[in-house]
Amino acid sequence: MTDVTDRLTVRLSERARLMPASPIRRLVPYAERAKARGVKVYHLNIGQPDIETPAEIIKGYKKIDIKVLEYGHSAGLKSYIQSLVKYYHKAGIAVEPEEILVTTGGSEAISFALHALCDPGDEVIVPEPFYTNYFGFAIMAGVRLVPITTRPENGFALPDKAEFVRLITPRTRAVLFSNPSNPTGAVYTQDELKMLGELAREHNLFLISDEVYREFVYDGAVPLSVLNLKGVEDRVVMVDSISKRYSACGARIGCLVSRNKEFMSTVLKFGQARLCPPTIDQLAAQEAEQIPPSYFEQVRAEYRRRRDVLCAELNKLPGVRFLPPKGAFYLIAGLPVDDAEEFAIFMLNDFCLNNETVMLAPGSGFYATPGMGKNEVRIAYVLKCEELVRAVAVLGAGLKAFSQR
Amino acid sequence: MTDVTDRLTVRLSERARLMPASPIRRLVPYAERAKARGVKVYHLNIGQPDIETPAEIIKGYKKIDIKVLEYGHSAGLKSYIQSLVKYYHKAGIAVEPEEILVTTGGSEAISFALHALCDPGDEVIVPEPFYTNYFGFAIMAGVRLVPITTRPENGFALPDKAEFVRLITPRTRAVLFSNPSNPTGAVYTQDELKMLGELAREHNLFLISDEVYREFVYDGAVPLSVLNLKGVEDRVVMVDSISKRYSACGARIGCLVSRNKEFMSTVLKFGQARLCPPTIDQLAAQEAEQIPPSYFEQVRAEYRRRRDVLCAELNKLPGVRFLPPKGAFYLIAGLPVDDAEEFAIFMLNDFCLNNETVMLAPGSGFYATPGMGKNEVRIAYVLKCEELVRAVAVLGAGLKAFSQR
Repeated sequence: MTDVTDRLTVRLSERARLMPASPIRRLVPYAERAKARGVKVYHLNIGQPDIETPAEIIKGYKKIDIKVLEYGHSAGLKSYIQSLVKYYHKAGIAVEPEEILVTTGGSEAISFALHALCDPGDEVIVPEPFYTNYFGFAIMAGVRLVPITTRPENGFALPDKAEFVRLITPRTRAVLFSNPSNPTGAVYTQDELKMLGELAREHNLFLISDEVYREFVYDGAVPLSVLNLKGVEDRVVMVDSISKRYSACGARIGCLVSRNKEFMSTVLKFGQARLCPPTIDQLAAQEAEQIPPSYFEQVRAEYRRRRDVLCAELNKLPGVRFLPPKGAFYLIAGLPVDDAEEFAIFMLNDFCLNNETVMLAPGSGFYATPGMGKNEVRIAYVLKCEELVRAVAVLGAGLKAFSQR
Repeated sequence: MTDVTDRLTVRLSERARLMPASPIRRLVPYAERAKARGVKVYHLNIGQPDIETPAEIIKGYKKIDIKVLEYGHSAGLKSYIQSLVKYYHKAGIAVEPEEILVTTGGSEAISFALHALCDPGDEVIVPEPFYTNYFGFAIMAGVRLVPITTRPENGFALPDKAEFVRLITPRTRAVLFSNPSNPTGAVYTQDELKMLGELAREHNLFLISDEVYREFVYDGAVPLSVLNLKGVEDRVVMVDSISKRYSACGARIGCLVSRNKEFMSTVLKFGQARLCPPTIDQLAAQEAEQIPPSYFEQVRAEYRRRRDVLCAELNKLPGVRFLPPKGAFYLIAGLPVDDAEEFAIFMLNDFCLNNETVMLAPGSGFYATPGMGKNEVRIAYVLKCEELVRAVAVLGAGLKAFSQR
């Protein structure tokens, strides 16, 4: 017999219970308390670039000339979609306007893709470590993420097709990955993408490729779009965003691109339910058309410098292991600690060097396999070189203090 | 034996198949074609006010002074949350900052609420006719909407508690409603809200109250917030948005308010997954603090005039039945046609009067009970009085032409 009191207890959904706090963001209260104590916190934890948003985009906000801030089209403003088409053509990706849905950040794009392709209980294979918020979107959609581990000793390359095949069940619907990869910095090769294409064709899967770091590749690495894969045109979904591309994270403008008409018509219906992405942010994003081509070269050079400085400085710290990333602006570092989350909290709560400390993203949040990443952290190199030097010195001192506490 | 070809057919999710096109937006292509032919279309179909967005908000965009368009806090910018607290206090609703999560429009607020309270297969009771996009959010969340019909002959009042109780099953998790109501214009009384409170307490349900039309009430009707209901503080979720309040639909700034701490901590985790609502739109929305109190009086007076004009003009059309709305800016009208969607398409495709026509939202999209609303339309009175006069004249001529076709 059910106890009436229990029956009447206020209770949220099972997915509310399962929903993880963002491992990137859940340490925020510790950081806030440190700042309240007057400690300077170097944010190595979050992909919030300090690169200035191009003046063209900021001017885009300032020059608005409207009387009524109306709803836009659910698929996005036509003029903004046109500007995206031009951008993709320049990036070597032939896209038609009707293959694009503008979303509220890449976040909404991932969420829409999972909802359109998966039902509750379905599975999506995801190379780990992966962008931690994939977890949250999967739980909201009732989707189970099935991890396939990539390893620094292999350059975080994708495992063989056979390893993927072993994970496929009747519920498997898609492979979700970011390329260039957040958090590993891997940039997948033509062969790796071809393998994914074969896998998708042979096992009736979709590929969801998160390409928001396209512009950030180094050492001659080439960012390949899943949209240019042959023979899987109807199985491919690309997720994008201007957040990193133009250092405009707060604009919340992303998009979904696919040549699958049924998919596009479904995500348009999702888009109609939420009415439209932000209007003025799209108008401002459209101004990116005015940004000179040299912009990306400069930004890329700056990130490459930062990567080089970060790697050089980290190399000085005993027991810290990492692979120099080829793309994006993160790396996964193994630390000489048992529990990197405990260490990250220690750094914010109990440590400072000349009144400075660093905030790190604990690695376990980037893995779905229990126990993986426990002594790892993700480090974002989104600070100026001199700040990175300083931050790594603070990290080194913190590691020493932690081992001696 | 499964046919291999069939097994390899590209197929989306079941919820993709179930997802309805927005009945408000799915006629858009017809309207676009009419406009391309040079026909002027009066938009009675969508709650896109023509009232100017307050200059304070527009200036808020123009005066931004930032170098890096950063992510904001996942719960919303602190300064914007403070301005919301002040607004609610003025509206007679005592709210603390930690009881607020800023969302990307009221849309995201509804979606987050359903995901936090319901698992796939759970049920939510919703008085019909209801805001049609509740359908889409429910299907994305795997939630079944269970309609309880409200009727014009009762002023679209809520049915008795006993009628609600009859619909409750072990899967029922919440009652979702808008107050003032889109699309009926009903404004629920203290007794109706008390009944919902009792229902929630006695049957362990949540109340999700969509109050985005709070400022739009007429004839002395008083908008009551579910947040002021006693004894159900932990069972109540309020959805809000600035879209209608300040004629700023394109800003996509809404919020969720609840005194249930576990709920707020869950929706914050959903919020962390999507990072943050748009930053500059929040900064602009914050400028609403500068809007003089007379603003709402003027806007309310304008909508009341429009409502009066719309009702007076509709009264002239034979066979058109409706109830003068007490709130929001919509009414449900019964038309002398068998199929209002067919009629709405006819108006866009096959009819014009002096090169003008009207766009209507077919009523069936606002009901979950099959067959209901088939000869009804929702009319939004978001146009100037003289345009409403003209639009109703065109509608009348269209009805005549349709009956004679």
